[in-house]
Parts: sequence; structure tokens; C-alpha cells
Amino acid sequence: MTEDVQEPNGQDDARHAEKMAKKKAARDKIMSTKTGEKGLIIVHTGKGKGKSTAGFGMIFRHIAHEMPCAVVQFIKGAMETGERDLIEKHFSDICEFHTMGEGFTWETQDRARDIATAQSAWAKAKELIASGEKSMVLLDEINIAIRYDYIAIADVIAFLQTEKPPMCHVVLTGRNAHDDLIEIADLVTEMELIKHPFRSGIKGQKGVEF
Amino acid sequence: MTEDVQEPNGQDDARHAEKMAKKKAARDKIMSTKTGEKGLIIVHTGKGKGKSTAGFGMIFRHIAHEMPCAVVQFIKGAMETGERDLIEKHFSDICEFHTMGEGFTWETQDRARDIATAQSAWAKAKELIASGEKSMVLLDEINIAIRYDYIAIADVIAFLQTEKPPMCHVVLTGRNAHDDLIEIADLVTEMELIKHPFRSGIKGQKGVEF
Repeated sequence: MTEDVQEPNGQDDARHAEKMAKKKAARDKIMSTKTGEKGLIIVHTGKGKGKSTAGFGMIFRHIAHEMPCAVVQFIKGAMETGERDLIEKHFSDICEFHTMGEGFTWETQDRARDIATAQSAWAKAKELIASGEKSMVLLDEINIAIRYDYIAIADVIAFLQTEKPPMCHVVLTGRNAHDDLIEIADLVTEMELIKHPFRSGIKGQKGVEF
Repeated sequence: MTEDVQEPNGQDDARHAEKMAKKKAARDKIMSTKTGEKGLIIVHTGKGKGKSTAGFGMIFRHIAHEMPCAVVQFIKGAMETGERDLIEKHFSDICEFHTMGEGFTWETQDRARDIATAQSAWAKAKELIASGEKSMVLLDEINIAIRYDYIAIADVIAFLQTEKPPMCHVVLTGRNAHDDLIEIADLVTEMELIKHPFRSGIKGQKGVEF
């Protein structure tokens, strides 16, 4: 170990370069086997933050590359207003935005309406995916609608497996992703809550939470 | 249980409404105690996807609300080109973008240069945060620079605790976040890898990974 890593000496630099060259060679070898492309089924779940936010991050990547995409918001229509406003104002030609949900289900207290809303959002989602015109469709908070049985998991699985165009990416977010969905997904990330400022009495803030 | 949740009957609807009304009352009560606002220290760590993507998602929320913000990329300068291009093209008046890293450290194999780059990125980060002009500063992949000792964790902690303006949010991303950073952070999310398509030979794809 050097006494001060800020002032590396020549010997350490050489050792570092050799180690990193090996790492690069190993990585390049691995990457050379990763040549496939396909439309992925991507799931963001868990109790932590960032499930929807990272979903929208991929939508912004699509927008940056001018790849056609769409968002269907299943539940929390009142949230993510920032992203919606930004997309509708600047990028409505690249990204379609459909907000079907009317707030969390405990806000409406009307199960019949919630079911109708979820079913209508799912119909729109299927239409967008099956159209073959979208490179990515974000189904924001669909896991909550599935969890409440507002949409049948079997329908979702069957549709994704048989009618999703091969190159279309579908991103499904929300807590408590169904096991059957995780089973057929290509990329699953669980956002785990380690620490949350609500515990210290801090409210949701503009630019962070919405 | 109803035989078909798609066709709820009146009794179930009433029970659902009552349950949800209780849930809403409980939630409203909790939320009414969350009145504080402060600039948060936010950490995204873990081996899963979405750490940087969710960080950029919050930057886009800031942009949507026209709140001044900035990004400093510490390591993977070659990645996130989508976000950078989009921000520089459309929103450079709201969001400053500084890419200091030159790819992962095993790409450069030059430790002295990596240290200089990391130190320069950290100097820029401190300047942006201390200016008091930014509502959010995203320090993308700084955890990797800390992990390699290119930036001293003690400096980062001391700066955030004594010189960060109270209302400025600072987001620090990257694997292996240092324990001392997690200790002082307000909001910490660990992105956990459940399933990754690299294992099936799928390469990083435009609009998903970059």
C-alpha cells in the first residue's frame, strides 16, 4: 500500500496498469459474446425509490435517440407530473403519454371505477405494444393493478409472450411484481429501501418525488 | 372471495370502499406530519440497474419544473450519452452538464490520470454545490471514484456536512457506496440485481443501457 494514494509512484502505476489491462481484456472477451439484440421485458419492483424514475430515465434515453416510445400510467395519475409535462411540451412527437390512473386506489375508494380504469389502461397498453411502432412502452405502476387483480396476470403473461413484437421493450413498474412476471422477464431490478427521509418528517419535494 | 373480480358485487364494493377510506385516513394522517423540506443527500447504490438512470430521472423532474440543476459524471464518460445529448441540446439553460470521466478505469489503465480526473470532477462538484445556485447536483458514479480512493471519503463527508447549502439536493450514484456516506445520507436506495439479460448473451442496447 502506498502511504498516499493521491501521489502514486511509478511502480504502483505500472502494477495498476497491468491489473486494469487484464480486467479490460477479460471484460472485452465477455462483451464480445454479448451480440444479441431483443426487445426486453424489464421489471422494476421493490419498496425503494426509483422504480418509475428509472423507467422514465429509459424513456428519456429513447427520446434522446429519437426512438418512438410510449408511457401508460396505470395508477398514480397525480404523480410524475413533471415528466408528463416535459414530454408533452417538448417531445410529444416521439413519446405518446397516456395517464389512465386517477391516483392511488385508496384515493378513489371506488373499486368498480378502479377496475374499469385499469382495464382501459391495459387495452391501451396492448394496442401500443402490438402496433409494432414503438421501441419501448413503459407500463408505469401496472404491478399495483395486477396485485389488486384489476388486471389478470395470466392475460399479461400470455400477451407479452405471444403478441409483443420481438424488438419492442416493455417496462413494468411497481411494488410486489407477480412471480410469474419475474419468471418471464429478461431484466429485473429490485429497488430496496435502505433509508427514507419521511422517517425524519420530510415531505415529498418538487424535483425529487414528482 | 368473488368468483370474478372483474364483476364486483355491491357488498364487496362497499367493503372495499370502507377499507380504502380507512387506508386513506391513515395515510393522510401520516402525510400531515411530513411538512419539512430540506436539501437531501440521496444515494443510489447496489449491483442492479437504474442507479444512474433514476438519478437522471430526478434531473429531468428538475428540468420539468425549471429548477436549476447540474450533472457531474465522474467515471463513465462514454455512457449516458443519450441523456447528455438531450440535456445539452434542449435544456442547457436549466441544467449544466460536466463529463469529467473518460470511461471506466480499466479502459484507461492510467491511474495517475484517473486520479487527476476524479479530483478535477470533485472540484467542479464542490463549486456547483457551494454556489447556492443549484437545486440539485447529480454526482454520477462518484462512488466508484471514492471506492478506488481517487477521492477521500472524509473530504466528501466533511464537505456535504458543512458546505452544502441547506436546500440543495445532492445525488451520489454508483456501486459500493461507502458506509460513512450511507450513514449521513437522507435517502438511500439499493438497486438489487435479480435477473440480467447479459446472462442470455444480449448486449447493451440503445435506449435501454445508453
